[in-house]
Amino acid sequence: MHFQHPQHPQSTRLGEFDLIQRFFKMHSEQMLAANPGSVTLGIGDDCALLANQANEDMAITSDMLVEGRHFFAGANPEWLGWKALAVNLSDLAAMGAQPLGFTLAIALPSADPHWLERFSKGLFAIANRFSCPLIGGDTTAGPLNICITAFGSTLKKSAIRRSTALDGDDIWVSGYVGDARLTLAALRHEIQLPQIDLDAIKSQMHQPVPRVELGLALRGVAHSAIDVSDGLLGDLRHVLHQSQKDAEILLDQLPKSPTLLKQPLDLQRLYASCGGDDYELCFTAPAHQRTAIENLSTALQLPLTHIGAIKPMKGSEPEMALIDHDGKKLPASATDAFLQSFDHFA
Amino acid sequence: MHFQHPQHPQSTRLGEFDLIQRFFKMHSEQMLAANPGSVTLGIGDDCALLANQANEDMAITSDMLVEGRHFFAGANPEWLGWKALAVNLSDLAAMGAQPLGFTLAIALPSADPHWLERFSKGLFAIANRFSCPLIGGDTTAGPLNICITAFGSTLKKSAIRRSTALDGDDIWVSGYVGDARLTLAALRHEIQLPQIDLDAIKSQMHQPVPRVELGLALRGVAHSAIDVSDGLLGDLRHVLHQSQKDAEILLDQLPKSPTLLKQPLDLQRLYASCGGDDYELCFTAPAHQRTAIENLSTALQLPLTHIGAIKPMKGSEPEMALIDHDGKKLPASATDAFLQSFDHFA
Repeated sequence: MHFQHPQHPQSTRLGEFDLIQRFFKMHSEQMLAANPGSVTLGIGDDCALLANQANEDMAITSDMLVEGRHFFAGANPEWLGWKALAVNLSDLAAMGAQPLGFTLAIALPSADPHWLERFSKGLFAIANRFSCPLIGGDTTAGPLNICITAFGSTLKKSAIRRSTALDGDDIWVSGYVGDARLTLAALRHEIQLPQIDLDAIKSQMHQPVPRVELGLALRGVAHSAIDVSDGLLGDLRHVLHQSQKDAEILLDQLPKSPTLLKQPLDLQRLYASCGGDDYELCFTAPAHQRTAIENLSTALQLPLTHIGAIKPMKGSEPEMALIDHDGKKLPASATDAFLQSFDHFA
Repeated sequence: MHFQHPQHPQSTRLGEFDLIQRFFKMHSEQMLAANPGSVTLGIGDDCALLANQANEDMAITSDMLVEGRHFFAGANPEWLGWKALAVNLSDLAAMGAQPLGFTLAIALPSADPHWLERFSKGLFAIANRFSCPLIGGDTTAGPLNICITAFGSTLKKSAIRRSTALDGDDIWVSGYVGDARLTLAALRHEIQLPQIDLDAIKSQMHQPVPRVELGLALRGVAHSAIDVSDGLLGDLRHVLHQSQKDAEILLDQLPKSPTLLKQPLDLQRLYASCGGDDYELCFTAPAHQRTAIENLSTALQLPLTHIGAIKPMKGSEPEMALIDHDGKKLPASATDAFLQSFDHFA
């Protein structure tokens, strides 16, 4: 852990990187002074220390964002700082975990103070919003790469897993799905989208709001959950594999923004079901929780949409049936095409 | 956390990266099957879960290694896998923490199975040696970048910090210092070193052994500790700043390998005091612990050398006096030159 002192001897521009480290450290200390939470020791030693609670497990997730791969070269640094933490908080949310803190390891081609100020503005905006302080990390020169590892607390034996969906569970998804993929399509000029439409949805891609409050509220309510960052159906497939279940999905019940609803039906279906980069939660819950979930939707001012059902597994592999707006099951060939569509984006 | 399922839609070559992920997952599952330790949930969900113990804190450290910066392009992948985890375990050792597990986020320019097999061989060799399983992470395409975050347990209020050195403490260092810098000098052709000498010391740079057992044994013995990955004097300076103390260092008592002892005295002093990349522990302890520490040295078969003393801070800033083999204090100018020498390597 090198946030407080210079890098290995091979590092260049120590002075500048030292400044960066101090810059991050200052923001971290401000947050911890206001609310130390579980942080026993923040930036400045060989390790950070988080206080354990006997009745809790520590949830841990790590994501690496690479320029040209997860974001465009020259991306808005403020959005990038936000999103780098958002994707990790979304993973915590999917386990029903309360954020405790995060480490940031970052490789930068140069120590550009303007870029860093904006990156840090976005990063600490979301860190503050979710009371999730920076507790340590590493800074080095290199091709732009941002690796955040985030920590959260779950009650012992109560983390919401992927492997625990039960027969007859309703399948739900939060928010809208498909807008991040629609934004990407517009930015890549794959489709024409009026600026007003793009403006209405682009924050879903650039500054997604992780569903932390929802994840916490689903403790004891949901049987299983996953975040749909890789596309709703692809991620749901993981739940089905790990739970060894089938599912029926009401393809035309997927919650879509007014902007996505203006697009042709085929594209709506594809983006909503498989678009990816949506930081929503897909979860399963027994039917007797419907009212509780609808009340939760109202309390959180967040759409929660019932999109299908978990079924006993009939064959040797989990199967997913897609049902259209007329209640008809799409033929297996069409279903396969949807399920494979995620990979085709690659 | 994306270790179990494909990357964001922007990722390329999903098939190959999927294979990598499965490859790491298989090794992780083998380790956890043999000894789950504190790991409640390993690879395969949105987060990993580590079980908390009420009387413990979680120590967390994160380091990012970049090609061309922390290791040469084309570096031996087996050494690299070893070292990527070793540097983090060294940080855990410096807090007196027991390793619990680690996450690996890695960006790879291509999915080369031969490279990966060797990288993973080195990585899991050290993971097994220190019973520190892989519990999750992320894999993506991009310029080679390895970010490991490691977790360890410390007894509450007993982590060995940098800020708690006391007046009159002896200063100790483990192993030999300077060999990693001597190896680097030879590889860079800054100096001529016979192959037999290089072979005798190069593992200090390529496959350092983190002092995990020593760190654990120093619980309740040492007042403060730090790992000297950035150079002994530079790192000790952090202890002095955080503890607000002065120090006297017996410059010619620094423990040096027979190979380093063949070099000119000036170079010996520079590399031993400021070379960096030595994953040894520098710690301070009261004089009444001397026998305990000497016994520990015997038990661990690891040199532990008394190299100086902590003193009350006389001025407004911590000062470090360097004493030569005649017991003479080096003039301030010489001391400054040593203290600044680390930065000059940059």
